[in-house]
Amino acid sequence: MSRSIAWLLCVFAVMVSAEAGVRRYRWDVKYEFKSPDCYKKLAITINGKTPGPTILARQGDTIIVEVTNRLVTENLAIHWHGIRQIRSPWSDGTEGVTQCPILPGDTFTYRFIVDRPGTYLYHAHYGMQREAGLYGSIRVLLPDGVAEPFTYDHDRSIILNDWYHASTYEQAAGLSSIPFVWVEEPQGHNMTVVEADGHYVEPIVVQNLFIYSGETYSVLIKIDQEPSRNYWITSNIVGRNATATTPPGLAILNYYPNHPKRVPPTDPPAGPIWNDIAPRLAQSVAIKARQGYVHTPPPKSDRAIVLLNTQNKIDGYNRWSVNNVSFTLPHTPYLIALKENLHHVFDQHPPPDRLHDFTTYDIYGVVNNTNATSSNAIYRLKFNSTVDIILQNANTMTVNNSETHPWHLHGHDFWVLGYGTGKFDAENDPKKYNLANPIMKNTVAVHPYGWTALRFVADNPGVWAFHCHIESHFYMGMGVVFEEGVEKVGKLPSEIMGCGETKAFKRP
Amino acid sequence: MSRSIAWLLCVFAVMVSAEAGVRRYRWDVKYEFKSPDCYKKLAITINGKTPGPTILARQGDTIIVEVTNRLVTENLAIHWHGIRQIRSPWSDGTEGVTQCPILPGDTFTYRFIVDRPGTYLYHAHYGMQREAGLYGSIRVLLPDGVAEPFTYDHDRSIILNDWYHASTYEQAAGLSSIPFVWVEEPQGHNMTVVEADGHYVEPIVVQNLFIYSGETYSVLIKIDQEPSRNYWITSNIVGRNATATTPPGLAILNYYPNHPKRVPPTDPPAGPIWNDIAPRLAQSVAIKARQGYVHTPPPKSDRAIVLLNTQNKIDGYNRWSVNNVSFTLPHTPYLIALKENLHHVFDQHPPPDRLHDFTTYDIYGVVNNTNATSSNAIYRLKFNSTVDIILQNANTMTVNNSETHPWHLHGHDFWVLGYGTGKFDAENDPKKYNLANPIMKNTVAVHPYGWTALRFVADNPGVWAFHCHIESHFYMGMGVVFEEGVEKVGKLPSEIMGCGETKAFKRP
Repeated sequence: MSRSIAWLLCVFAVMVSAEAGVRRYRWDVKYEFKSPDCYKKLAITINGKTPGPTILARQGDTIIVEVTNRLVTENLAIHWHGIRQIRSPWSDGTEGVTQCPILPGDTFTYRFIVDRPGTYLYHAHYGMQREAGLYGSIRVLLPDGVAEPFTYDHDRSIILNDWYHASTYEQAAGLSSIPFVWVEEPQGHNMTVVEADGHYVEPIVVQNLFIYSGETYSVLIKIDQEPSRNYWITSNIVGRNATATTPPGLAILNYYPNHPKRVPPTDPPAGPIWNDIAPRLAQSVAIKARQGYVHTPPPKSDRAIVLLNTQNKIDGYNRWSVNNVSFTLPHTPYLIALKENLHHVFDQHPPPDRLHDFTTYDIYGVVNNTNATSSNAIYRLKFNSTVDIILQNANTMTVNNSETHPWHLHGHDFWVLGYGTGKFDAENDPKKYNLANPIMKNTVAVHPYGWTALRFVADNPGVWAFHCHIESHFYMGMGVVFEEGVEKVGKLPSEIMGCGETKAFKRP
Repeated sequence: MSRSIAWLLCVFAVMVSAEAGVRRYRWDVKYEFKSPDCYKKLAITINGKTPGPTILARQGDTIIVEVTNRLVTENLAIHWHGIRQIRSPWSDGTEGVTQCPILPGDTFTYRFIVDRPGTYLYHAHYGMQREAGLYGSIRVLLPDGVAEPFTYDHDRSIILNDWYHASTYEQAAGLSSIPFVWVEEPQGHNMTVVEADGHYVEPIVVQNLFIYSGETYSVLIKIDQEPSRNYWITSNIVGRNATATTPPGLAILNYYPNHPKRVPPTDPPAGPIWNDIAPRLAQSVAIKARQGYVHTPPPKSDRAIVLLNTQNKIDGYNRWSVNNVSFTLPHTPYLIALKENLHHVFDQHPPPDRLHDFTTYDIYGVVNNTNATSSNAIYRLKFNSTVDIILQNANTMTVNNSETHPWHLHGHDFWVLGYGTGKFDAENDPKKYNLANPIMKNTVAVHPYGWTALRFVADNPGVWAFHCHIESHFYMGMGVVFEEGVEKVGKLPSEIMGCGETKAFKRP
């Protein structure tokens, strides 16, 4: 029913040379008719644009964004994806976790420090508003006088987003899942990957870069081909057989002085085979921290949580779930509930660290739905403890089908310790973890029928969502929430209140 | 662009015989796909239905409606149209006036007494959600042992609503105005009007009943025609030339034992001529209070406010306005702002009681836009004072065009003292007011290039909206707000808080 198309936006990056300091933005968010692919539909815009303005800052800057909601009847919240929100957990922008939504007519001020250079995103974190167009780029430059460990002459940012002709309301009502994995393919030009999710990586050369929802990469491209023509840049979907419904995203790599709109003499290349997992797994495994920039993980963890990614039916509805529990958000945000001791507003019984029958669970079989349930319970982590998460993929409700899920952690980067195919072996697989030079990321894919192991230190006081970044999968329950050191969180700003049981709270 | 259709729903009224008491409803409000006219679109439903359940009660009953918002990202508020909310002004359901909107996931409890028998409505009062399907009927029966001043054998309710194929978001974004006046025409059967807006009227016999948005009527129909066939019931638009875009609403009047779906042997009748105002004005004037049920108005008023209905452009946008002021709602509801002395959240400078140049204003000329502005200022009325309102219609921004506006007052019924064509003459027209047997209503039309005079006593402590009931006209600024005796309003329930500056208020 819903027809999706891919589209590309090139943002010309302007280097700024101002001193580190405060960067203030005022954003009006509203609905406007837009036709990015010549199909007119309502989009959520920021100051009249989708994607919204690029936040361009320098490491250490304080970002202040005053967001005014002009959506008439609809609330919103904006997440700063990849920003750890150290000492500002209430600015994470996750509705139901760290704040009440911003009501129509209200202005909410996000204030946070961008403490690391790199390429990040911002996007709506409420319902499925991201797909209505509410997203943009954050680019954090190095401090003056500090050089990147690679050089280049020109700099372009490309941001990819799903774009549907159906409205997010129609999508939400239909509970439809969506194509979600994107591939970029610059014909004839190799790409050298040098940064991922804000961390330098040991340079690797690829022809196709597999990008999963919520990830950011920096790549170097050498303009060394036949200069009399232009070249295609394409994005294609893998993971779903979407050629019939989703046209590729096309852009032109312009060799000056050719006209920038001069069509390349060849057809745009087809993407990789949609269901060939091997090259995707190989790319995941190949990405390591760059020498000289390695942050070594703690050698051992205090706790390991195995999250089985499954699909279930609950009351006849299709749901995604973790350990057969489909996540629902409470109406009183966790951060406020925990600080104000509102114990009754969410389920206090913690979810399991692994499925009770994990050792006998058949990840290749169609999901047995008997125990599926929904819950808003959360994991409470010991402050400063080291936590391992093993994401375990499995078959869905369809025979011979397992999907890719890019998981995104708020408030943290994590080390990616390893990937595997088949079921995770708690005895032997940890022995193969890469503890020498693992990449740190905030978003990582778990491949079909495979597992991904990651580690982080629970050292950022707050409440943090961890969820599949495919918007409809999270909407359908594929996520968990971690609490750590909430008692160390400072006085909450009253601005984040106003929903659920926080509505009539004393001004703090 | 937007195509609208008319549709009819027949609700079978079931007489209940329970004692007056408490009637409790639990409503889940959400988006669902519906196809009432075979075009599938998202509708806002109550417990799975649009229109929502009929509230059937007896005079004196307390109605408790627990509304749970399941709209994902969208707020809501429900107005109980025709219920005066005496001693419960916070239950009027007018977002921005009497309450904060109900957030997704929240449950809000409306509690009010239905103190008079009659036929009323309920509907969304936030953005344009009414047109998304959020509305229904309220029927209040007489106390046991009290008879209506007319008799009938069977009882049916029909509720009419605009229904568009475009979403309310698309409509709101386009700021499009809509067809709004409805006519019902039962061929071969006259109708005897016996009740309007909850008040008995001196019976009048009509072939076509002109109904304006927000009005309710009870009519008697004698089933005295040739019984071997069925008959058409049709609804048509007048006031706009809409035959090309809006098909008539059709229903069948079934003469038992003919099959109820047997098509009548004639074509459905065409409606009255769309731009013939005379019969509409004649019907308005003909409706009087029923003998024996007359409530006599105070003979004189303490204050007269003349509201010139105009159209303007402000910053390039089309707006409707009153005395060249286009109304906007504040983000902190008036009722709370006034009780809590938040003087800065809305414009404290009162709007004028009449346009300063009203005596020379040319109601037949295209609007002169020079002084158009927008404001959220309100009229503050002396408690228990008698107030006259003169609605004065005028030409719009289009040559030779003046539209019909049905104005609806919250918290009150008013006496309809008179109608006139042309400009109101403050010297002579009041002498012709009907003070003997004027009908009381909560909604009244002002006809093209005409005026309508009404009177009410400001005796209901609270803050009350008064506005054109065409949803897009109010959305575009055609309304005012009255405050009266707000100091007598009791302690506000904390449940109505949670938006604007009420967000972090002390638990009262």
